[in-house]
Amino acid sequence: MNVLWVFAHPEPRSLNGVLRDHGVGTLRALGHRVRESDLYAMGWNPLVGPADFGHDPGDRLLVGAASEHAHAGGTLSSDIRAEQDKLAWADALVLQFPLWWHGMPAILKGWFDRVFVQGFAFGLPGARRYGDGGLAGRRALVVTTAGARPTGFLPRGIHGDAEQLLFPLLHGTLFYSGMDVLPPLVVGGADRARTADAAAAAASLDERLRDLPSAAPIPYRPEQGGDYDGDLVLHPHLAPGRSGLGVHRTVPAEDRAEPCPVR
Amino acid sequence: MNVLWVFAHPEPRSLNGVLRDHGVGTLRALGHRVRESDLYAMGWNPLVGPADFGHDPGDRLLVGAASEHAHAGGTLSSDIRAEQDKLAWADALVLQFPLWWHGMPAILKGWFDRVFVQGFAFGLPGARRYGDGGLAGRRALVVTTAGARPTGFLPRGIHGDAEQLLFPLLHGTLFYSGMDVLPPLVVGGADRARTADAAAAAASLDERLRDLPSAAPIPYRPEQGGDYDGDLVLHPHLAPGRSGLGVHRTVPAEDRAEPCPVR
Repeated sequence: MNVLWVFAHPEPRSLNGVLRDHGVGTLRALGHRVRESDLYAMGWNPLVGPADFGHDPGDRLLVGAASEHAHAGGTLSSDIRAEQDKLAWADALVLQFPLWWHGMPAILKGWFDRVFVQGFAFGLPGARRYGDGGLAGRRALVVTTAGARPTGFLPRGIHGDAEQLLFPLLHGTLFYSGMDVLPPLVVGGADRARTADAAAAAASLDERLRDLPSAAPIPYRPEQGGDYDGDLVLHPHLAPGRSGLGVHRTVPAEDRAEPCPVR
Repeated sequence: MNVLWVFAHPEPRSLNGVLRDHGVGTLRALGHRVRESDLYAMGWNPLVGPADFGHDPGDRLLVGAASEHAHAGGTLSSDIRAEQDKLAWADALVLQFPLWWHGMPAILKGWFDRVFVQGFAFGLPGARRYGDGGLAGRRALVVTTAGARPTGFLPRGIHGDAEQLLFPLLHGTLFYSGMDVLPPLVVGGADRARTADAAAAAASLDERLRDLPSAAPIPYRPEQGGDYDGDLVLHPHLAPGRSGLGVHRTVPAEDRAEPCPVR
């Protein structure tokens, strides 16, 4: 497979950096082709602004319309187009980052804000969102490290169930754009990680990377599957009497074979 | 009250800009004092990096430790300290942004990444997280606009229940730091907003701002309240048999009097 590895940590000598080097090596040893977007090393600009679109700053900027128009006309700024070219090449995407304030570092959030524009990631003719879109046919794996102990990310852990905490990324971004989203790898206790912990995390990562072509994705409900009504609300006979993020899986999160975080 | 209004949109002539101007005016008319952080207008740098901490780039950067150390020594970069001073002054925080990829724009995520350091927002002597912390005693209101129709953010809407979608911010950042977090105001249909819609959104905003000093916060469970065990997992007799983000409220989300989004 062609794999794009997106990395968002300022320090290559960090646990994250070690895992990235290890994981890229594993993929290559498995025969995959790997390209990398090391966002800090690239000096990636995370801020959506008029210059992305060749927009006259004297006119009011409508972000959605301007980005769609610039994409259609091939006039998006060159750094955005370079990332889109990598995505178009890739069969799978690995997103690796430290969990800061229970989400992505700003530099990675701004990669999505700028690169995933209408007409590229979504809003293509005939494609509905969630399970279909500009990136359909691709697989996505999220790998994140958390300073806190891993039990806090269990389904009833204080920080929130890891998969639901990552819902805006897993469901609201990756699945939204049509990708098959694999269960995330959450490495806890990173603030206290020693050499043995790093080795255990690397082993967990290897397992996920070996399964990258074949692992079953999270069973989110596609928009076009008939599960939602005209207002995009889940039909009452599905997950009856329940609400919250878990209802958007065809198999309830409670029935998952294993909890999410490792260590 | 002293209110800090943090605004994260690149276009002051947007619906967001109109709502910000309107809301700041409302607060002043109500007798409150308002300071603003207009992140795009300030040219805010959202990227955590060694320069924040006066860190020698030749040495390995441990982000958590370096930020805590620089905060304790008063050597955090001046733009970070200026934002911390505003937060110290404030009794309430209003965070206003367009919902991009189901979360904050990168510029605002990077405001938290850089400003909410250990020793300031959390990790103070004697303070546990979630319901206590460096920002205890302050109230927080999130105001966000979404391009999509508002029904998609209902408790069973396809985009995910609005409050749970915002859990990493509401619970994992604001409540984590000790703040009382009010139910968010989510304005849907922003991509198709007309003058009448903007007026309705402004009226909803006014209502929330009038209630800013008195509205009941989201009833999240504090870490020190005895609801979690030593592994920070919710005790089995609480919300028995349930999991997911909703279990971290003392009152289940399903029993909310009203759904979250407006319009």
